[in-house]
Formats: sequence, structure tokens, C-alpha cells
Amino acid sequence: MKSQERLLMRALRREKTERTPVWLMRQAGRYLPEYREVRRQAGGFMEMIREPKYAAEVTIQPIRRYGMDAAILFSDILVPLEAMGMKLVFDDHGPSLPIPVRDRKAIDALHVVDPAQTMGYVGEALRLTRAGLPDETTLLGFCGAPFTLASYAVEGGTSKQFSFLRKMMYLDFASYSALMDKLAAQVVAHMKYQVASGAEAVVLFDTWAGSLTRADYQKYAAPWTRRVVDGLAGVAPRVLFAGESGHFLDDLFGMGAEGVALDHRTSIRDAFERSNGRCALQGNFDPAALFASPDEVFRRTTALLDEVGGRPGHVLNLGHGVFKDTDPECVGAFVRAAKERAR
Amino acid sequence: MKSQERLLMRALRREKTERTPVWLMRQAGRYLPEYREVRRQAGGFMEMIREPKYAAEVTIQPIRRYGMDAAILFSDILVPLEAMGMKLVFDDHGPSLPIPVRDRKAIDALHVVDPAQTMGYVGEALRLTRAGLPDETTLLGFCGAPFTLASYAVEGGTSKQFSFLRKMMYLDFASYSALMDKLAAQVVAHMKYQVASGAEAVVLFDTWAGSLTRADYQKYAAPWTRRVVDGLAGVAPRVLFAGESGHFLDDLFGMGAEGVALDHRTSIRDAFERSNGRCALQGNFDPAALFASPDEVFRRTTALLDEVGGRPGHVLNLGHGVFKDTDPECVGAFVRAAKERAR
Repeated sequence: MKSQERLLMRALRREKTERTPVWLMRQAGRYLPEYREVRRQAGGFMEMIREPKYAAEVTIQPIRRYGMDAAILFSDILVPLEAMGMKLVFDDHGPSLPIPVRDRKAIDALHVVDPAQTMGYVGEALRLTRAGLPDETTLLGFCGAPFTLASYAVEGGTSKQFSFLRKMMYLDFASYSALMDKLAAQVVAHMKYQVASGAEAVVLFDTWAGSLTRADYQKYAAPWTRRVVDGLAGVAPRVLFAGESGHFLDDLFGMGAEGVALDHRTSIRDAFERSNGRCALQGNFDPAALFASPDEVFRRTTALLDEVGGRPGHVLNLGHGVFKDTDPECVGAFVRAAKERAR
Repeated sequence: MKSQERLLMRALRREKTERTPVWLMRQAGRYLPEYREVRRQAGGFMEMIREPKYAAEVTIQPIRRYGMDAAILFSDILVPLEAMGMKLVFDDHGPSLPIPVRDRKAIDALHVVDPAQTMGYVGEALRLTRAGLPDETTLLGFCGAPFTLASYAVEGGTSKQFSFLRKMMYLDFASYSALMDKLAAQVVAHMKYQVASGAEAVVLFDTWAGSLTRADYQKYAAPWTRRVVDGLAGVAPRVLFAGESGHFLDDLFGMGAEGVALDHRTSIRDAFERSNGRCALQGNFDPAALFASPDEVFRRTTALLDEVGGRPGHVLNLGHGVFKDTDPECVGAFVRAAKERAR
């Protein structure tokens, strides 16, 4: 199979590769004029996500411009919550869930659904994307991790303090567990559906997990992340991202996933030592350092590759998503640094 | 002098104390009904800050209710920027600076000012607070650190990506340095004025520094923090707070300040080992764990004190400020855990 030979897939198996594969979290996004044009045509953000031709087009755009080694499905982290029965709206502040899930009754009303029946546009977007991608490009699926999905479901959107979620965790663990059980099952189903639709590897985004202490992460998030990782064993390589997770990296390394994403605060050399061959490492260029000049971005990216020193199992990426004010030239310099550097 | 005998001051000198001193970042705030009442009377947030009787009253309120070992001046981090010549407004989204400083001309127009002439209400609030505090309570002054003040000055408010600041840092270091030079001088002057007005120790808040990689922190923030720390040598004990700073704690420990605040992600036991007697450590209870029940807060606080194990130089605090939805009972349980636990 050709897909077994793709650069990113080999790096996730920690094989020696001729160069370091590269892609960027949120590489399909507002910093690209061609993305903004599609968004204008589609009429909005959710319209892009729900119409496979638009979703596929913006997923492919950065590959066309820069030739990254992977494309990641353009979608929104809240899509599975909508499929489970939550109302999802999109306004100037981004997507939100105006009727959050804050008690047992609301949790019981959520259903684990068949993605093929409820989110067919996701599968179709993946199929269209695969058909439009160069053969050497890996196609990645993604989903929010259970803890992060719970954060959105319970708070109704992004939050500074997550007070409703924390109260449920601490004061009503039975309800919290019931919610997490359903979310973990839905995440597994969603990832399997994406793989069946053409995704070769899956990225699990636990955006808010880093807000937890290590002990709370171990009790309130990790068990369900592990359930997802276990549920996808043999299905496709799994990459875990958790924002600001330097304090529980060892837990992530031990989760059994093929890859762990590092944020830009972590020393990648230390992380290679601590992970000790248990997984490939993705990262970890500071997304805000893309505000430097293209030459400086190139130098800094090269310095990061030097720091890794050709260790097998490195996937060059940012520590977080591309910011919308990023100069496209700087993304270009970042990708070029990886591609021009043979091992 | 009696002030030399206060518990918090002794802990900052890393003396053995009969119990661990305790206070909470943002302990004067919206979670307290008596604070909301003063805010209503004053007519708004900036009105409280600018009227010493209100500022003193809300500074004292948590001491009256809970008896923390320190009171920290109620003010806003942006106040010195206003004094330097920036327009400061306050609306539903909080304080902001509608005319940000983004080029050399705007930086040159900022003036390092005499706080006694321009921020007399700060000194008066400190004098009124001291007069209203119990004798055993330490009065703390505070100011934003230069990097965090620069973030606000250049972005005009809070930001997710800090694109204007980063561009100035990376593309126009001469202007960035000129801005940081002025801010560092203003911070030193502001802190000295607060000490002259009754503050016994000073807390330097570097809220946004943790967004930097360690290398960028060392180049773009630390030199000016060090200048402030050096400029206050012999003036009053200095406590450094930097949000999400686990990746450059060693730099903070080596800055020469008497105290370093830890966020809740850091293992406090590891931090005691790594700091190795160079400074006292403040922290680091998860502010979101105050959403647990009062009993659970008491248990968790006791567990934190157990983890520290009576090492000298611990100041019990949160890892970040109190959230507004916090139950006042839970703040009470936190303080009680420290006070009931004799060493």
C-alpha cells in the first residue's frame, strides 16, 4: 500500500526518514487569502464545514500553496456535540452551544450516534479531500478529546474559569462520569468513521486539559483519553495534543498513542529524553514566533530541527494553531526549512 | 519595628514560622457580596480604583471576613500606563487602551512620571488601607512587570495572539527596548512610591510572560524584570509572579527576588527542590479547585501543606487569581486550612 510509505506515517512509526515531515495545526485558516475567499463564497464558517466541497477545498489549500506532508480535515471541534443532540450556533464570537448540558437529565438526553448517519458531510469531505490531495500527502482526521468536549458541552462555549464543569467534576462525579462515558464512545465512533472515510491517522485535541493539575488530569481526563486511545488500537495511528501540558507529559507519553504533540513551552530535547522511544513527538515551534520575519522564522525552524538532531519520530509542527494575523510568507519559511533540510 | 515581625515577612525571609501565612491573588473581588456592593456605590470599577476610600475598603474586606495574613492593594495593572500618557477606558469587557503604542513615535511620547504627582490616589489608598488593617496583616503593593505592561500597551488590551507586540519584538527590537526601558523605570518608581506609602513587600505580576518560550523569555522579558528587581534591592521584599511559567522557573528562581509565585500546574515539592533555598515560594492551589465543596477545598489545601511538609519559606496562595463565580465559603475553607494547621 502506498499509504504505508508516506513520510508522516513512517515518522509516526519512528522510522528514520530522509527528512522531517511537517504540517501546522490550523494550517487551513484565516491567515490565507484563498481561505477567506472560500468563506465568503460559502457564506460563513459552519457553511464551509457542512458543505463537503468547501471543507475539502480549504483542507487542500495549504497543501497546494506550501506542500505540507499532511492535510487535516477542516471541521469544528463542536460538530460531534451537535450530532449528539446539542444545539450549535455560530456568531461573531465563534461557535457556541446555547443550551449547555449541566445536569443528569441533560446528559441522559445526549445520544451516542452513528457518524455515518448524522455527520455524513464529514465522511464526504474526507473522500473529496483525499481525491484532491497529492499522493504523498497524509490525510489526518481529528476530534476533540472527551475532557475538552465536556468543557464545551457543560460551559456552552469557551470559558476562562470552567466553573460549571469543575462543579460537576467535584460535586457530581456520577453525572460527570456518565457524560464522559458518552463522549468517549462518540469520539471513538467519530474517529473510526473518519478512518473509514479516508483518514490515515487521527489527532485527538485536548485543548483545555492543561488547565488541570496533574492529579486532576489523572482522575478526570486521562481515563477517558485512554479509553479512546485503546478503542482506536489497530484502527489508525493516534496523535494526542493537550494544550499547556508540560506538567503531565509523562502521562501522555504513557497513554499508548503513536504520537504526542508538544506545546512551544516544552523543551523538545527534554521531551525526547523523557518519552524514551515510547512515541513520536510532534511540535513545537511557537506559533507567535511566526510574527518574526520570514528569514528569522527559517533560522528558528532550522534551530529547532538542529535541537532534535535527526532523532527518529519527529513531526515538525507548531506548539498550537496558526494565528489569524500570521503572514503567509512566514508559514512558507517554516515549511521550507523542513523540506530543504535533508537528514 | 512591628512590621518586621509579621508572619508573611518572616516567611519571605524563609524563617521557620509557627504556621504557613496565607493570602489569595485577587482576594478582593467580585466573588464577595460586600465588594459588589461597594462597586455599586462607587458606580464602577475605575471609580473604585481612583477613590482611595473605596479602594481601601475593598482591599480590607477579605481580611475582615477571612483574616488572611496579607492585603494587596486593589488597583488595576493598567494604571501606570495611564499615568505615562495612555488613554485608559473601562467598559463591559474590562479596561482597555484604545490608542495602543505601536511605533517609535508613540513610545517616545510616553513619559516616566513621578507616581506621587500622577497617581496620588494609589498612595492615599495604601495609607487608608494600612490604617484600617489589623496590626498583624502585611500590606502588599503590586505592579505589572515590564513585559506584561508592554503587552497591554502595544495590543491595547488583552490578546490571544499578541501579534503587534511580537512583531515589534522581532522586527523592531530598538523600539521594543526603548519601550521596555521606560516601563521598567516606571515600575521601579511605582513600586518605590507604594513602599513609601505603606506597602511592606511588592508583587510583580508578569501575567503574559508564560506565553514566551524560555529562550524568548530570557531575551525579551527577563532583562527588564531583573532591572526592576535590582532597582528595588533594599527597598522591600520582592515577589515575582509569572503565569504558566513552569518552563522558565529556574530563571525566576535566579532573579534575586525574595519570593517566586508558582502556578497550579507546577509540583510545589519539585519547585522547592529546584529553588534550593534561593527564594521563598508562593502558591499554588488551583483556583478552579475552589469550585469543589468547602470540605474538599479544606482537604486539598491540607494535602498541599502536607506536600510542602513545613519547609521554611512557603506562602500559601492560589496559582492564579480567584475566579468571580467562587463560593465565599470555599475561600474560607482555604484560609482556615492554613490557620488551623500549626507546624
